[in-house]
Amino acid sequence: MNKQELFENIKRKKSFLCVGLDTDIKKIPEHLLKEEDPLFAFNKAIIDATAPYCIAYKPNLAFYEIMGVKGWTAFEKTVNYLKWNYPDQFIIADAKRGDIGNTSAMYARTFFYELDVDAVTVAPYMGEDSVTPFLTYDEKWVILLALTSNKGSHDFQLTTDAEGERLFEKVLRKSQEWADDRQMMYVVGATQGRMFEDIRRVAPDHFLLVPGIGAQGGSLEEVCQYGMTDQCGLIVNSSRAIIYADKSEQFAAVAGQEAQKVQQQMEAQLQAHHLI
Amino acid sequence: MNKQELFENIKRKKSFLCVGLDTDIKKIPEHLLKEEDPLFAFNKAIIDATAPYCIAYKPNLAFYEIMGVKGWTAFEKTVNYLKWNYPDQFIIADAKRGDIGNTSAMYARTFFYELDVDAVTVAPYMGEDSVTPFLTYDEKWVILLALTSNKGSHDFQLTTDAEGERLFEKVLRKSQEWADDRQMMYVVGATQGRMFEDIRRVAPDHFLLVPGIGAQGGSLEEVCQYGMTDQCGLIVNSSRAIIYADKSEQFAAVAGQEAQKVQQQMEAQLQAHHLI
Repeated sequence: MNKQELFENIKRKKSFLCVGLDTDIKKIPEHLLKEEDPLFAFNKAIIDATAPYCIAYKPNLAFYEIMGVKGWTAFEKTVNYLKWNYPDQFIIADAKRGDIGNTSAMYARTFFYELDVDAVTVAPYMGEDSVTPFLTYDEKWVILLALTSNKGSHDFQLTTDAEGERLFEKVLRKSQEWADDRQMMYVVGATQGRMFEDIRRVAPDHFLLVPGIGAQGGSLEEVCQYGMTDQCGLIVNSSRAIIYADKSEQFAAVAGQEAQKVQQQMEAQLQAHHLI
Repeated sequence: MNKQELFENIKRKKSFLCVGLDTDIKKIPEHLLKEEDPLFAFNKAIIDATAPYCIAYKPNLAFYEIMGVKGWTAFEKTVNYLKWNYPDQFIIADAKRGDIGNTSAMYARTFFYELDVDAVTVAPYMGEDSVTPFLTYDEKWVILLALTSNKGSHDFQLTTDAEGERLFEKVLRKSQEWADDRQMMYVVGATQGRMFEDIRRVAPDHFLLVPGIGAQGGSLEEVCQYGMTDQCGLIVNSSRAIIYADKSEQFAAVAGQEAQKVQQQMEAQLQAHHLI
């Protein structure tokens, strides 16, 4: 999916919501445990209920890997289900990979060729040749960690170098030598609302993947105030607040309602910023 | 495995070699492709031939994930084969994981509880709470990326902050607030021989996992000169130079010979440093 198509989807659905599929066997409704593939059964129901209100899904690999072969199978089935039934959904493999060149090339092939997802989250620590192998696929995206939403983000990401540049700013600036806003997005945590001003100074047009709305505690209005561009430029993720909103047999319907609530807030923001 | 046991194994085997199981379906001998599980068949043969000469194995997850469910199965079988047949081998899952706390906790459980490997490589960019979930398991190790062997390591790892500290040094220093040398090791690339002096100034006693001998071009003698401690303190990895030394039906025997050659060089170094 290219940038223009993503923006068209956002305008058509009046939403820039990404639903995070952090599907934990210990947290899904009990009645699903008797299914042959409980993780996939959960994801399928959540997707069917939330798809009208979101433009992206983000399965988090950790939650699948922990189940070994069964988890990997559920992950593949989820991706395939999305591709066949909701081809307009942007699929993000939240994997935070990154390794030396030939290894990153293997990861890139796994996610972009074998699984055919749209985007992978990548960690920047190892630098250019750990990221560029992900940039060799048409209309596929690297979502590079810049400023994350967790407490530990302060340990290294905010370190100021001798020229006064913070590490996350250096990541934003340096990585633009490798690809532009048609292939690269950045992870920027919503817990740091005013930081979006600083981000936009270095990356004015890039899409930002924003975790941290809901369970992690960011404000949607603040994110839009400081982070929204004339092509929206935001994909805001919510995982637990939507997918675990209810644990009864009605879990999917309730998740749909929660997604709709967020979509309505997003619609208001898109209108306020004159994008729809 | 604890630090003392690891050092005892090194003295007993006169080796601090780690064999990297970067098992690529496109590079293994052709005759193995007719096996039911070619990746595992390759690993099993390589392990049997090289085990006398090494103290650790490092499967690189990228090479297994690319095969999907089949790859994950081969990875699990490899770990189990090692655990049953060579319980004195230190098993490193080279996964370079690292995410917000609850996600890192899932990865930690996957590798340390479900798979029961000894160590996982972890990326430091997200800071303390992305690393500490891996530190809650007894006699299990975090191997944190510090100074990697690839060209891109210059992009961010060598950035000097306002106090004159380089990012990799900050990673070494800061992470010692989270765990000491009984639970933490560091990845330090061998292509940067003299850098071991700087590393040892900040982390005098930690074990270092050193990739970059062989295909990536580092010098074993230089690494030992600047990096060896009175408990060895080095695990030196070689992947391609050993496992792909030969592609005939004799591949395993040749890999064993290559591993033995490296072991003999290591024995000489251990003697020169009066550790055996």
